[in-house]
Amino acid sequence: MSKNRMEAFSDGVLAIIITIMVLEMKVPHGQDLATLQPLLPIFLSYILSFVYVGIYWNNHHHLLHATRRVGGGTLWANLHLLFWLSLFPFVTGWMGENHFAALPIALYGAVLLMAAIAYWILVRTIIAGEGRDSLVAKAIGKDTKGVLSALLALVAIPLAFVNQWLSLTLYVIIALMWLVPDRRIEKLLPEFRDR
Amino acid sequence: MSKNRMEAFSDGVLAIIITIMVLEMKVPHGQDLATLQPLLPIFLSYILSFVYVGIYWNNHHHLLHATRRVGGGTLWANLHLLFWLSLFPFVTGWMGENHFAALPIALYGAVLLMAAIAYWILVRTIIAGEGRDSLVAKAIGKDTKGVLSALLALVAIPLAFVNQWLSLTLYVIIALMWLVPDRRIEKLLPEFRDR
Amino acid sequence: MSKNRMEAFSDGVLAIIITIMVLEMKVPHGQDLATLQPLLPIFLSYILSFVYVGIYWNNHHHLLHATRRVGGGTLWANLHLLFWLSLFPFVTGWMGENHFAALPIALYGAVLLMAAIAYWILVRTIIAGEGRDSLVAKAIGKDTKGVLSALLALVAIPLAFVNQWLSLTLYVIIALMWLVPDRRIEKLLPEFRDR
Amino acid sequence: MSKNRMEAFSDGVLAIIITIMVLEMKVPHGQDLATLQPLLPIFLSYILSFVYVGIYWNNHHHLLHATRRVGGGTLWANLHLLFWLSLFPFVTGWMGENHFAALPIALYGAVLLMAAIAYWILVRTIIAGEGRDSLVAKAIGKDTKGVLSALLALVAIPLAFVNQWLSLTLYVIIALMWLVPDRRIEKLLPEFRDR
Repeated sequence: MSKNRMEAFSDGVLAIIITIMVLEMKVPHGQDLATLQPLLPIFLSYILSFVYVGIYWNNHHHLLHATRRVGGGTLWANLHLLFWLSLFPFVTGWMGENHFAALPIALYGAVLLMAAIAYWILVRTIIAGEGRDSLVAKAIGKDTKGVLSALLALVAIPLAFVNQWLSLTLYVIIALMWLVPDRRIEKLLPEFRDR
Repeated sequence: MSKNRMEAFSDGVLAIIITIMVLEMKVPHGQDLATLQPLLPIFLSYILSFVYVGIYWNNHHHLLHATRRVGGGTLWANLHLLFWLSLFPFVTGWMGENHFAALPIALYGAVLLMAAIAYWILVRTIIAGEGRDSLVAKAIGKDTKGVLSALLALVAIPLAFVNQWLSLTLYVIIALMWLVPDRRIEKLLPEFRDR
Repeated sequence: MSKNRMEAFSDGVLAIIITIMVLEMKVPHGQDLATLQPLLPIFLSYILSFVYVGIYWNNHHHLLHATRRVGGGTLWANLHLLFWLSLFPFVTGWMGENHFAALPIALYGAVLLMAAIAYWILVRTIIAGEGRDSLVAKAIGKDTKGVLSALLALVAIPLAFVNQWLSLTLYVIIALMWLVPDRRIEKLLPEFRDR
Repeated sequence: MSKNRMEAFSDGVLAIIITIMVLEMKVPHGQDLATLQPLLPIFLSYILSFVYVGIYWNNHHHLLHATRRVGGGTLWANLHLLFWLSLFPFVTGWMGENHFAALPIALYGAVLLMAAIAYWILVRTIIAGEGRDSLVAKAIGKDTKGVLSALLALVAIPLAFVNQWLSLTLYVIIALMWLVPDRRIEKLLPEFRDR
């Protein structure tokens, strides 16, 4: 039951984050195609961030599914993750409004990196509570994908000042890498598999 | 349990979408009837979109009720549907603020069409996971109503540039068509029927 | 389970309504007491509406607790109630910003009346599904309090154009009348009673 | 079940409060570091308030976990707590936008104090319903930490007019004091403990 409420709260926060991002696309006053044009980069940023929050929700869902006990440390590690994810609407809006300028792109990467670190801390806190032989420890394993995406975000931050399109490409690559659902946990939990 | 969390997250997102749409009705500064008048088209758009999101919530609720297993593919198909629904506040606001001009009406139809396609993909993903003999496959059947409403939205998009009121009438017809709850599933699940 | 999801969705919508109302209190730019003064009527309107949404949540919670089955008609009767409640942030903001002028006060009463009617329709739909001998039918009884508060709201609307303070007083009286939780249902369901 | 819905509603409201606070950090129009600078105090205020709402969510979660029955009085005591917490986005935004001026700092403390009192009322209402020998009564005990943090907030309010940085330091101290999860309840409920 304790776990359920942490899931419910996280679902609430993630649902709000993913939905208020769309509020950054302010309704324009004109009625022709030209008034929509300045919204295009904001829309593209929104798609990218929607996918990222979706990825985090998906992985969080899988992770909690494999978790049995939730203690005080886990609650705070989870809030810490939600904190960084809550900055997505801000960095998404800033990146979109400035047509993918260097600094906003770098800041986006910084939030991405902090969220990845926060997720890693959450995983470690849960594994510390459940033990090394637990289902969740086996399911996560070495978490190569998690470490790799944090490293790519780390690289993308300084790269933004060289060429921001390269950074942006890295963000898209990280997202695509995760769009495939976490087969490690699905392998162990047959009820997750479609068919 | 896996299904529950996907339902909870969808409920959260749909609840936020349906509620933030009302924020497009900005509180006016005057205090007489004339200051309310420009809000009338926004209010009418809000009613239409409220009904649409209500329809999606209702159908989603029935669909998930008949579903037994939720896999990674279903989670993403669901997020894809939520993405298109999340654009409702934007297109509703734009349509209302421009007093139902042609382009905003067409864009509204485009979002409606994409949501219908996303719902169709979600249904197919679930049926693929549950099998052709499953409860959900029988309950949905050929989904004539779903296909018909997607076709009507497809027609309404170009029609907006000929006469936007015809398009709007089509949107109202689609909504009315769905206001009747999904009897196909209710027929199979007696606990859904109001006596 | 069907009931649970309707409760979850309603909780989500009511939680958002009650919370976004506070966004009408725009953060002022100054830093002294004088900059807070124009916010006072908005704050008072917020308190009144917070109490009203709280009352609806409370009664809704008690009503659903006594309900066993939820059908398609109930889902739409519930969405209809949520629609009128979703207009609370707008009328609250308009009433507050205009320092309780006549027309905003009357519109507030109109939304209050429509919400009361929508609640009454929801109750009747549920009782129609559960039967006259059901727990919920016995618990609601003649619903004198519900009918009385709808009548008071009906009186308050034209009264606003005579003296808006009298209307406002009526709104406060209706709220106070409901602040006492619904003892009718608590009487029948002992697990609701404190001690 | 009654308890579950009160938890779900509180989770919804707290999730929205914690997330809409970030909307006070308006996306700036420039794209260099200088445009971010004025947002720094708003960001720091956001962190502080995020931690506070997190603390309340955490303690609320522990408190309800130890509670067995929820009556009408408890529902209203809970709404009363949510009311004061709902003012956090406003006072956070006002404090941040005025770079921690005296009056906004004092008002922040007043909301903090009222929330602490409301939490105390909620605890007392629950204990009155459950009895002095109940799990929750034993788990809370004399609530020294709760009383102490209310007293510190009470001191911080007038102190803001002498030196606002001292007040702010007190707010940080109160937060740190609570960041440690409520071991009193965890001691009694072993399923809460990590490991």
